[in-house]
Amino acid sequence: MPSVRSKKANLTYRSAGVDISANDEMVDKIGHALKRTYDPRVLSRHNAFAGLMQLDFREPLLRRNYKDPVLVSGADGVGSKLLLAMKYQRVEGLGIDLVAMNVNDVLTCGAEPLFFLDYIACHKLEPTWIAAMVESISRGCNLANCALLGGETAELPDLYSKGHFDLAGFCVGVVEKRRIIDGRDVEPGDEVLGLASSGLHSNGYALARKALASLPTQAKVQLGEPLIDAALRPTRIYVKSIQALLRFYRRKRVVKAMAHITGGGLAGNVPRVIPANCDVQLSRKSWPIPPIFRLIQSAGVAQAEMFRVFNMGIGFVVVVRRAFADTVAAFLEKSGERVYRIGTIRRGSGRLIWR
Amino acid sequence: MPSVRSKKANLTYRSAGVDISANDEMVDKIGHALKRTYDPRVLSRHNAFAGLMQLDFREPLLRRNYKDPVLVSGADGVGSKLLLAMKYQRVEGLGIDLVAMNVNDVLTCGAEPLFFLDYIACHKLEPTWIAAMVESISRGCNLANCALLGGETAELPDLYSKGHFDLAGFCVGVVEKRRIIDGRDVEPGDEVLGLASSGLHSNGYALARKALASLPTQAKVQLGEPLIDAALRPTRIYVKSIQALLRFYRRKRVVKAMAHITGGGLAGNVPRVIPANCDVQLSRKSWPIPPIFRLIQSAGVAQAEMFRVFNMGIGFVVVVRRAFADTVAAFLEKSGERVYRIGTIRRGSGRLIWR
Repeated sequence: MPSVRSKKANLTYRSAGVDISANDEMVDKIGHALKRTYDPRVLSRHNAFAGLMQLDFREPLLRRNYKDPVLVSGADGVGSKLLLAMKYQRVEGLGIDLVAMNVNDVLTCGAEPLFFLDYIACHKLEPTWIAAMVESISRGCNLANCALLGGETAELPDLYSKGHFDLAGFCVGVVEKRRIIDGRDVEPGDEVLGLASSGLHSNGYALARKALASLPTQAKVQLGEPLIDAALRPTRIYVKSIQALLRFYRRKRVVKAMAHITGGGLAGNVPRVIPANCDVQLSRKSWPIPPIFRLIQSAGVAQAEMFRVFNMGIGFVVVVRRAFADTVAAFLEKSGERVYRIGTIRRGSGRLIWR
Repeated sequence: MPSVRSKKANLTYRSAGVDISANDEMVDKIGHALKRTYDPRVLSRHNAFAGLMQLDFREPLLRRNYKDPVLVSGADGVGSKLLLAMKYQRVEGLGIDLVAMNVNDVLTCGAEPLFFLDYIACHKLEPTWIAAMVESISRGCNLANCALLGGETAELPDLYSKGHFDLAGFCVGVVEKRRIIDGRDVEPGDEVLGLASSGLHSNGYALARKALASLPTQAKVQLGEPLIDAALRPTRIYVKSIQALLRFYRRKRVVKAMAHITGGGLAGNVPRVIPANCDVQLSRKSWPIPPIFRLIQSAGVAQAEMFRVFNMGIGFVVVVRRAFADTVAAFLEKSGERVYRIGTIRRGSGRLIWR
């Protein structure tokens, strides 16, 4: 028992701004959103200190799925897209963005996303609002075939202004060691397929917000939809189509490299997965630039800057053996992607060349 | 090529507040801090989209370490401890706090922490400052025997005020399925060992900051050290001693449950790992309350509230078979912990009883 007894015992955690019962209410509300992402490998119990997921799900004949498993992990946030979403009180798509930014990265190695965890920090913990955000993250996890294994919600009134919040996420996937896709087999002659993005995804919003705010209202009608709908459209999640592709070509080494087109655009991301003795040569005429990018450019952004900052309509890139380019493209189209043959691999020095 | 060509191409990503070259400089600076946490299982390459870690490290005789691996994962931040650290410009311990909050949670299941990822969001990306923060996280990872596999740094000037930032982290560990420690074997008669905390750890700072700010200066000298040193002391990381204990008792089921004492204190955390037909009975006289807690209480916090919010000197709890309580306590003391026999398990209904 402490020897210093207080004379005026009136200072409480609640009076200091933290409401533990609101936290309990929130945990109850989000239970369903977590559970519907679970598969039989999830072993977590209610109220546990950590989330548990069995790596190998023993199938009927006790066949093991992974002989030499490599865990693949990434962390990411949604950046200043959330400021635009806050301003228009349209935050319901941000959970999908958050999951997408992480799982698309993990996917580039050929990994199967296993689980996701979120970090939500806010001014005030409002259970209904948090539940809506977790619901959105849960929808993202369903699109990515991964379990929402847990997360943390932090109420930090002295750090975040009223109505402000931040989001971060973490994803873990697994890949059989000999099936890791890392671009080392890429060689001259390989074809580069570009998968259509759904819009800006979650990059370049510092510039996009500035550009869009500077435009006259009539400039915004050419989109054929409200500007804010186009600007906040959630990031596309490529997991199901790419995983289906990798399963289909399980025996053959058809897919040689993959890149998630985030900050830095095509030039910042495709060379990351190309050997130092190759260049990637892309044609800007090989795919249509979506209207939202033309609109941002019209606010006074140089074309080179546009391609350095934004995905310009290509959200994910797959480098394949030339002989399989047609069938891979057809397979991905059938899986719901729009696919463009945007270029080829040449002998070179690890750069991206526009042609 | 976009058909809308800009007339005045003067809006750039840099003018919109984002400096990509500062980001590159930062990535170079933190390389060393990441690499010194690596073990041979880390397969990551520079510039990769995601971090890679081989689950099984093949030892000389191709012996596999895990037959039925279960991944254990948690996400956490450091809460408003960072506001106190910002105010006094003493942020160099926060990386250890961040790692500790995550790995101690993962540890409660008996898991070996494998890797950690961080999320740092700030007003302005200053490479030197970020490097110091990652250095601190890297020291935490070394204390926890886990690899700092990657992370994300976000510059969000419109969300964070000048000098403000937020930290979140995420840890993955692994445990052999049949060795998961989840409290299901806890039974009346088991002993409860309490491992000393290093101070407040990373919980209750909303209340602690308020209490400490209200105290007269002379009240603060009884600590025997500057108040801010005591208030910001990094959270203790229990990984090495607990992992050594679990390896030592690999064959015997000696450790039955473990709890990390975070928000909610002993009453909020120990019952989480106790079966519904047991109570945990603890004696407040069985360990010394560190001076920092007495000081906070003297500002006017009721004793019950103190025990509901703070760890009160016990940072981690281990429930063991009674016959092994002495040897386990001695083993942990030898590993560098201060250990108190703080109570026992009784027949009951899942509650914590003070005696």
